[in-house]
Amino acid sequence: MIKSFLLAPGPTPVPPEVLAARALPIIHHRTPQFGAVLAEVQTGLRELFGTKEDVLILASSGTGAMEGAVTNLLSAGDEAIVVNGGKFGERWTKICQSYGVGVEEIKVEWGQAVAIEPVRAALERSPDVKAVLVQASETSTTAVHPVEQIARLTRDRDALLIVDGITAVGVYDVPMDRWGIDVLVTGSQKALMLPPGLAFLALSERAWQRAERPHLPAFYFDLQRERKNQAENTTAYTPAVSLVFGLHAVLAMLEQEGYENVFLRHASLAAATRAAGQALGLELLAPQAPSPAATGLYLPPGIEGGKLTKYLRDKVGVSFAGGQDHLKGKIVRIAHIGYFGEFDIVTAIAALEMALSKFGARIDLGTGVAAAERVLVERFAAI
Amino acid sequence: MIKSFLLAPGPTPVPPEVLAARALPIIHHRTPQFGAVLAEVQTGLRELFGTKEDVLILASSGTGAMEGAVTNLLSAGDEAIVVNGGKFGERWTKICQSYGVGVEEIKVEWGQAVAIEPVRAALERSPDVKAVLVQASETSTTAVHPVEQIARLTRDRDALLIVDGITAVGVYDVPMDRWGIDVLVTGSQKALMLPPGLAFLALSERAWQRAERPHLPAFYFDLQRERKNQAENTTAYTPAVSLVFGLHAVLAMLEQEGYENVFLRHASLAAATRAAGQALGLELLAPQAPSPAATGLYLPPGIEGGKLTKYLRDKVGVSFAGGQDHLKGKIVRIAHIGYFGEFDIVTAIAALEMALSKFGARIDLGTGVAAAERVLVERFAAI
Repeated sequence: MIKSFLLAPGPTPVPPEVLAARALPIIHHRTPQFGAVLAEVQTGLRELFGTKEDVLILASSGTGAMEGAVTNLLSAGDEAIVVNGGKFGERWTKICQSYGVGVEEIKVEWGQAVAIEPVRAALERSPDVKAVLVQASETSTTAVHPVEQIARLTRDRDALLIVDGITAVGVYDVPMDRWGIDVLVTGSQKALMLPPGLAFLALSERAWQRAERPHLPAFYFDLQRERKNQAENTTAYTPAVSLVFGLHAVLAMLEQEGYENVFLRHASLAAATRAAGQALGLELLAPQAPSPAATGLYLPPGIEGGKLTKYLRDKVGVSFAGGQDHLKGKIVRIAHIGYFGEFDIVTAIAALEMALSKFGARIDLGTGVAAAERVLVERFAAI
Repeated sequence: MIKSFLLAPGPTPVPPEVLAARALPIIHHRTPQFGAVLAEVQTGLRELFGTKEDVLILASSGTGAMEGAVTNLLSAGDEAIVVNGGKFGERWTKICQSYGVGVEEIKVEWGQAVAIEPVRAALERSPDVKAVLVQASETSTTAVHPVEQIARLTRDRDALLIVDGITAVGVYDVPMDRWGIDVLVTGSQKALMLPPGLAFLALSERAWQRAERPHLPAFYFDLQRERKNQAENTTAYTPAVSLVFGLHAVLAMLEQEGYENVFLRHASLAAATRAAGQALGLELLAPQAPSPAATGLYLPPGIEGGKLTKYLRDKVGVSFAGGQDHLKGKIVRIAHIGYFGEFDIVTAIAALEMALSKFGARIDLGTGVAAAERVLVERFAAI
């Protein structure tokens, strides 16, 4: 018997309360009953996003909402700046290029946050740029980009700031309206503690104005049609009913915990994970701006990451994420996003220690857990 | 948000596969469909109990089956020997006394296993003794009694051996027929990984013969009536249908793991827990014959167990059991019975360490987990 722990940065574990809500009978979506649920989750989503605008709910993965942001706001031949500091930055580029949007990439070394100066320089060089596309938290490198500072550059210009907040929204504060973000995207299977299947995005007032102008073709992801429907508490196409029921339960849980506490929890668990990594002598992948969603750690030389994570998943029951592209086999990414508590970190570190030891790394069993516990003791004292 | 861990010796956690089985629609119990389920679980229960006899399923807690064993096999004025080494030994005495059965108690210091000599002496002193009642594993003291040796004394005499196997069956091998146990009782909420609500018991051939003679009054727990019904794949009274569905899933899981591996898992997790306790300088409650179901550890002087376990439950999310009667406030009992894996032990020890540290005990955080990991590394290497 192997008890499984899903400790990768998405999909993430689902609380039993949310499982119970998702087990409720499916009701028809063209009913006042489902409309009432949509109205209630809309209120919660606005608070989550920090916006007075509508937060659209789509039955898709986060990538669908990313594509919708591009197709509803840009046209073929438009120029966009993409911050590419990892696999998800690369995805912005690929989406734009699929539709003939010209991309100027600001390449960022994996694990680094983008510097502000190159963004400013690119914007000044190309005053016609229609959008800056960036990740708030780049999941593939566990680094956080300075979205608030980028917003200071875009909000006085014509360029819209389109932010993939998939591993940021609900993890740390990304107040869309206050910072001046034009599009904020997230997905269900991260901090929202749901199974995959829902995406969310909100547009600023000026982004909605832009969406009214001619733009790339969009049908399923036609955001204006979706907005018109959702303003009337329905959806353009069939919604993922049970996931919306789950979302209702999730938002109630998050509100009960309080967003301040939710953010603190993520920050503390991240700090405990980093402390453990340091105690084990493992270098951080993103030391300057580590994400509170997941911690990337370099493995000791000679340890094959692929074998380590496969062993952990198949024999130990603990699923971490590895590295992609040139980081493949070199790192491990330990999540602390969504329905994570203190003992998920203890489990993650104990599993990592035992596996490293099995694969011949020279570490003292318990060292990482001890360091994590020292951080967690402080957290327990504070709550 | 507090993520909760139920790490007490019953009720125990329920696997998601079993939750799913329990979520199936309720079918009527007087149907061939339900009869087919009962027939299948009967086969699995016989293997679990190590018996060729019927294993009766009752909709009750384990205590109901204990009472049924007494009322169906004894009469008012009969004499019985009770091994009383804890709260559940005491329960045998109370049940017997409620029905006017005379009890000779063999008192055992809490945490100790009963010695064989006093049992032999009591049997020889009173050749009319009709039954010896004992726990296989005394949950309240985390000690294991030598049931196999006691059976060697009873099987050649007229005394029936009635065994409470509530925290033993499915934890370690208690082969009923091979050892010569006359009645073996268990409950659903322990090694069977189910919610509370079902009890099980099996009677040896000679116990069934005894049950045919006049005995104490029994209606709900009339075992002969129940046996007659269950032989026809039905039950005398309304069965707990969803729990029986869950049982069906549980038996499939246990058979897939293989009982040898199930017993090994419990033994390894118990060894890891004891190693952690020792590393933390905590004395074992049952050093001679510690149960593979739960480990009792004395708390350091000055630590109030009640406050510690309350803090762990309410603030940390980890539920242990404390001590009862004269052990109240002095010990903690950490379970490893049923749906427990390696990281439940890691969680238990990390939580205990952090709580002990908060309450002023002089321990080094991580010491216990390191000791547990050293045992678990061996376990992972072996599986």
